[in-house]
Amino acid sequence: MSAEKLEECRQHVRAQLDDVVTFWLQHSHDPVHGGFFTCLGRDGRVYDELKYVWLQGRQVWMYCRLYRTVDRFRKPEILEAAKTGGEFLRKFARVSGGGGQWKCAFCLTRDGKAVKVQRTIFSECFYVMAVDELSRVTGDTDMQLEAEQMMEQLICWVRVDPSGLGRPQLPGDVPTNSMAVPMMLLCLVQQVCEGRPDARQKYAELGSWCVRQILQHVQRDGAAILENVSADGAELPGCSGRLQNPGHALEAGWFLLQFAAETGNAEIQKTAVEKFVALPYASGWDTEHGGLFYFLDVDGHCPTQLEWSMKLWWPHCEALVAFLMAYSQTRKPELLHRFFQVYDYTFSHFPDSVSGEWFGYLTQEGKVALDFKGGPFKGFFHVPRCLLMCEQILDDLLNKD
Amino acid sequence: MSAEKLEECRQHVRAQLDDVVTFWLQHSHDPVHGGFFTCLGRDGRVYDELKYVWLQGRQVWMYCRLYRTVDRFRKPEILEAAKTGGEFLRKFARVSGGGGQWKCAFCLTRDGKAVKVQRTIFSECFYVMAVDELSRVTGDTDMQLEAEQMMEQLICWVRVDPSGLGRPQLPGDVPTNSMAVPMMLLCLVQQVCEGRPDARQKYAELGSWCVRQILQHVQRDGAAILENVSADGAELPGCSGRLQNPGHALEAGWFLLQFAAETGNAEIQKTAVEKFVALPYASGWDTEHGGLFYFLDVDGHCPTQLEWSMKLWWPHCEALVAFLMAYSQTRKPELLHRFFQVYDYTFSHFPDSVSGEWFGYLTQEGKVALDFKGGPFKGFFHVPRCLLMCEQILDDLLNKD
Repeated sequence: MSAEKLEECRQHVRAQLDDVVTFWLQHSHDPVHGGFFTCLGRDGRVYDELKYVWLQGRQVWMYCRLYRTVDRFRKPEILEAAKTGGEFLRKFARVSGGGGQWKCAFCLTRDGKAVKVQRTIFSECFYVMAVDELSRVTGDTDMQLEAEQMMEQLICWVRVDPSGLGRPQLPGDVPTNSMAVPMMLLCLVQQVCEGRPDARQKYAELGSWCVRQILQHVQRDGAAILENVSADGAELPGCSGRLQNPGHALEAGWFLLQFAAETGNAEIQKTAVEKFVALPYASGWDTEHGGLFYFLDVDGHCPTQLEWSMKLWWPHCEALVAFLMAYSQTRKPELLHRFFQVYDYTFSHFPDSVSGEWFGYLTQEGKVALDFKGGPFKGFFHVPRCLLMCEQILDDLLNKD
Repeated sequence: MSAEKLEECRQHVRAQLDDVVTFWLQHSHDPVHGGFFTCLGRDGRVYDELKYVWLQGRQVWMYCRLYRTVDRFRKPEILEAAKTGGEFLRKFARVSGGGGQWKCAFCLTRDGKAVKVQRTIFSECFYVMAVDELSRVTGDTDMQLEAEQMMEQLICWVRVDPSGLGRPQLPGDVPTNSMAVPMMLLCLVQQVCEGRPDARQKYAELGSWCVRQILQHVQRDGAAILENVSADGAELPGCSGRLQNPGHALEAGWFLLQFAAETGNAEIQKTAVEKFVALPYASGWDTEHGGLFYFLDVDGHCPTQLEWSMKLWWPHCEALVAFLMAYSQTRKPELLHRFFQVYDYTFSHFPDSVSGEWFGYLTQEGKVALDFKGGPFKGFFHVPRCLLMCEQILDDLLNKD
């Protein structure tokens, strides 16, 4: 029964990945200025020409990863798309910051002029991911060096001196450990270390630091994952301190599972499964309508985010990867059961059978609330990354079993 | 029939205003540090102690306005609340900006430490509103001077040099006329000029400039109000250029109606009714479920704001004022008909018959989506301002008819 259902999942996941890759190859490329349009309507038509740097970087990374790791995507058109996307990113994303530092813009005009710069690290993180992965498929060592330089700057902003980010120091703005920051850095460590023993050695301490920072988000005597904690790992007061983001915690879960597998750390694996996979599902799954809530308050207050009860595509992507990876590492049947449950909700609600690709935003009840396929925060990333990882794990499970 | 319904509205509006004032007097005051808690749960309990400066300023203004203009609110406890709120605001809201300028924080800790500063003008605008209105009830000329100084700085940021706001100049970030800016300044002009002929003379040119800037948002040959236009009044490309915010346009409508009444300008009155009242209603009313959408795209694309289809309390407050004021100025029956329609939706969906005050956020279908009474953007302002203005107009209509 499980094997049959796994095989059905594998075929479906594979077909969906092909569909999604085709959609973005067909609709998102800018033949005039290079780079990618990311605001694509339900049918793929461009409804806004702004180019979001997070999404440019992620799309380059995704094309490279598909080209490098999946035989059927090792095609010139995918390599070419990655290269022209990378060229646009390297040419336009960096804007001059203070003190000889490079900040990356948050979004650009169609022809590459900076529109907005955020005072956070994330544009730079996706820049590193893109350029490092591109250096792997092209063999360009200059790019690898560039990714490393940006990485060093990021580490400095996070661990030494954040002043280059441009935020004023305010007496009421206490230093906070937001889960996104160590998660993102851990993801980069895994990216730049893959297959490079010297990098692995160089970033071993940083990787462990990221894991410790992530584990600080286990709060309430191990009963909850909280999105923001104090710099020394204590619960923060108010809404910010009580905030839960189940999809984000599940994503941290599979980052930790990967780290546990790479380092052979059974304790991290156990914590990842029990705290970062099981707890966010238990608190975040909507037992009435199905699907994962976007935000919750650990004490049951109403979150102040207007979209708290919506069902977004990406938490479901992260949940699929987290449960399948957790099952594949532990073979605990209840994890496979949860994977099937998330799978059934996800595949019956998000894919658009009419125009292809996935809807991104549903109401609590599961109705499509926003029907575009790409927007300021939805690009060619969460869906194909999830499908690729699920396909690889399912292949592995089915050949082994 | 209309007179009966108007009398029913008047009584209901009056009772609601009493209820809402009582709710905030009872739940929002901080006896320890002064100022107001604004994050109040459904039953009024404080769920976050952060103090949002927009809401501090608006609550001070509202208490003063009630004290100054309504006999039954001319009570020592309301004056006292306004004064202690004003004291907190004047003591803590201003943080030192560059070049000897004052920026106001966006939010403060319970004891007044700045947590966040926005690179916009709105905290400062609500500071001016609060301090000017407080100077009127206390007779404190120092306060009046302080409001005027902040006002001059605001005018300079908007019309001469925005660099004090702290935003980097970026080549892709073209100067934009966002409707909020001239609306807010027009509101301040009306505030500081009330009953002061010398101020009226001083700010006459600024008032006319604000009106011209607002009128630039009439686009598509007069068929639509767009939220953002270029600095010279042309349509902007992309989502930002196509954005419609019906509640905001309706609010601009009654600002213009007030300006028209003060200046005896029949042409502005006509434009206000035909463009800023009728059009946003025509495009913004949900004919399926009732209520006003929060955001729309003029070309019918799906907005990228996740909350676009939600029904928020404040657009309905602005619509009530706009239709009732438009009717009172023109006596056109279709405007009264629309007022009743918005009234019926609003009063059957937003007031909480269990715990008092109004819910702020409904789903498209009209279900309560967030159940708190106060949050980062919902305080003691839109509801009581709307109820007060409707009560005054209804009193006027019923005595005249």
